[in-house]
Amino acid sequence: MAPCASFQKVFQALHSGEVTHAVIPIENTLHGSVHENYDHLIEYDLPIRGETSLRISHSLIVLPGTRLKDVRQAFSHPVALNQCRKFFERHKNIQPVSHYDTAGSVKMLVEQKPADSAAIASENAAKIYGAAILKRNIEDDRRNFTRFFLLTKQTAPLKNATGEWKTSIAFSTPNRPGALFRTMACFALRDLNLTKIESRPLHARPWEYLFYVDITGCAEDQPVQRALAHLAEITTFLKVLGSYRPSP
Amino acid sequence: MAPCASFQKVFQALHSGEVTHAVIPIENTLHGSVHENYDHLIEYDLPIRGETSLRISHSLIVLPGTRLKDVRQAFSHPVALNQCRKFFERHKNIQPVSHYDTAGSVKMLVEQKPADSAAIASENAAKIYGAAILKRNIEDDRRNFTRFFLLTKQTAPLKNATGEWKTSIAFSTPNRPGALFRTMACFALRDLNLTKIESRPLHARPWEYLFYVDITGCAEDQPVQRALAHLAEITTFLKVLGSYRPSP
Repeated sequence: MAPCASFQKVFQALHSGEVTHAVIPIENTLHGSVHENYDHLIEYDLPIRGETSLRISHSLIVLPGTRLKDVRQAFSHPVALNQCRKFFERHKNIQPVSHYDTAGSVKMLVEQKPADSAAIASENAAKIYGAAILKRNIEDDRRNFTRFFLLTKQTAPLKNATGEWKTSIAFSTPNRPGALFRTMACFALRDLNLTKIESRPLHARPWEYLFYVDITGCAEDQPVQRALAHLAEITTFLKVLGSYRPSP
Repeated sequence: MAPCASFQKVFQALHSGEVTHAVIPIENTLHGSVHENYDHLIEYDLPIRGETSLRISHSLIVLPGTRLKDVRQAFSHPVALNQCRKFFERHKNIQPVSHYDTAGSVKMLVEQKPADSAAIASENAAKIYGAAILKRNIEDDRRNFTRFFLLTKQTAPLKNATGEWKTSIAFSTPNRPGALFRTMACFALRDLNLTKIESRPLHARPWEYLFYVDITGCAEDQPVQRALAHLAEITTFLKVLGSYRPSP
């Protein structure tokens, strides 16, 4: 397991062959899509080969022996800190301090043993690094799920296995009324369901959009191939980001 | 001007009449839609009456006289801290510390005068609170725009002015193949353009989605009214969030 200090570095590590697989967050039920990772998926040719959705639960983690009343600062990723605002409102003597990664803040705690400090991360991070959990579920909102993609450097054809598949694509349409409607027709006319659609304005080119779409089916199956060929006729940019089994 | 410690409190202040207008962020070019604010827009009847899009630029702000080499910690909202990672990589002697608000961190700096401290916020915040700017544009990515909505408690009919309008809506569709395609037809068949579309899975009800859609036109104009009446026939939930002039 190799933690990375930025998403860019995750993609670089996979691209260079330093790692064989990578897991990246792609969307969160509270915070929306991680556009930065869509940018990297479009830039690099590293196909999505799996997805999973996890409930995000944060624990207050300390070195064994530290008591709650001794904690003066809590390290974590800024997004995690932001998801625990009510905890910090209830514990005004604990100051949130940004760190590059949630699990990385537990690692730092165990290695550097800063005084009066805690980390905010998953229960699992506490187990991995042999730290102690002081409080569980300190996040404000329990409806906090993050969807992750599993990426590989492997671009070999998929086994055309039966069962359920999903395919993620990104495309741009010409700036013309009804352009999006026509792209939707490529799928609707072939009974392919959409499980995600999102427009993203391209600020460099006003009135142009990038769309992220997830459809049911595998990119190597005929109905999906036909839909994608049809879509290619009416889009200015199209990239298949990968096909994978849907998370349970 | 009344800063609020959470988006929930902004909506409460407007709903209770404590303030007459409110400005909330709704999406960012790097971080996607602020789903929490869509939740509040659906919950409260506080119509959108304007939009604006701002480039987010962060400055390192200090009390007049403080030098860069004296700064040991920088306070800001966790999202802003996260947008200035490269700055912190270049200045390892400065620790990022989370605060509830960017402008609020400048206010805190001016009022409490913590030693060796800076705030990260807009140039404007420095002006408002009489603080000094040490460094401008310390954000990692210049393509960082946030779109804001202006909300009012006013639900009186809009003046049916000519010119450009946009309308934001939220709706759910039944779980049926082609359901989204049919909703798109309501607009495409009336030559109404979409300027945003986004699906959001409802975790409580798997396979059901909430859609956020922005269309061209005012909710009080006939083509939009007809499209919305058509849409109401084929959706399980529909709410018009407001009509407003598009930002330039």
